[in-house]
Amino acid sequence: MYRLLYPLRTFLIVSGHEETNVMTADWVTVLSMKPFMVGVAIAPKRYTHKLIEECKEFVVAVPSVDMLKDAWIAGTISGPKKLEKLAITFIESEKVKVKSIKEALANLECKLVDKQSYGDHTFFVGEVINYTYNKDAFPNNMPDLKHKFLAHVGLEKFATFSEQIYEAG
Amino acid sequence: MYRLLYPLRTFLIVSGHEETNVMTADWVTVLSMKPFMVGVAIAPKRYTHKLIEECKEFVVAVPSVDMLKDAWIAGTISGPKKLEKLAITFIESEKVKVKSIKEALANLECKLVDKQSYGDHTFFVGEVINYTYNKDAFPNNMPDLKHKFLAHVGLEKFATFSEQIYEAG
Repeated sequence: MYRLLYPLRTFLIVSGHEETNVMTADWVTVLSMKPFMVGVAIAPKRYTHKLIEECKEFVVAVPSVDMLKDAWIAGTISGPKKLEKLAITFIESEKVKVKSIKEALANLECKLVDKQSYGDHTFFVGEVINYTYNKDAFPNNMPDLKHKFLAHVGLEKFATFSEQIYEAG
Repeated sequence: MYRLLYPLRTFLIVSGHEETNVMTADWVTVLSMKPFMVGVAIAPKRYTHKLIEECKEFVVAVPSVDMLKDAWIAGTISGPKKLEKLAITFIESEKVKVKSIKEALANLECKLVDKQSYGDHTFFVGEVINYTYNKDAFPNNMPDLKHKFLAHVGLEKFATFSEQIYEAG
């Protein structure tokens, strides 16, 4: 019943040097502010698992609902044969050799710094050494919900945030 | 710019045996399906950090927007003195000595199985050995968005999901 923590945000994980692959991952978290570090849990059978172990880099790309079709393909078809079905445009990253995604709202360029095996997944830990983002989607360093950040409800169901802000304090 | 991954879901972390404390955490992820494992990144200065290290258990509680005031207090006031300000009702968990939260939509009872230091936070890994949840909030093992699961946009701003479901595939 891991879905008790759902909906969770859905991200795209890009990896590979000689070849590029992309997969969808919900199990992504921030780990540290300074240095900026993130972690992503990936099943060993995934092609991206092999690519990250080889190239020791990955990019976490932030999709909007507009990229739902690509997120679904990247999450349900395994390996590089999915690439021809995707509408995604890969572009050069600034500080890693792994590609970024042009259509994404943000791309976090990560160097692998640790990996741990937890149950049926491997937890890859990356230091975010550079990032690029759509300035309109993150005014004042905070997400603007009108950009419809993608979240996964379960199976083929996805959602985004209501634009209503609840102010605490 | 860790907020490039925001909004992220906000959870409440309960810990302690002799004394109970609760804090708010956004940096929470699923790590494994079988066994069901979760991870949470907590700063060493947090009182909950000490409690988890001592009692080696924690509960991840799932708040709705209705619990926003409590989530804010639990996230901004440190240590047990916050407890008197909270409207939360602590109840016995079924399989761990750490308390659960009556008002939460779900409570995941975790045994600490690993911890790693990543940058300025400690990543605590727990095996979820039991869980209780509001059946109405998770019909067919999937979240029902009308229950207004809480997400953090940044600073004092929070949000929840729009009820519109986007079907992929």
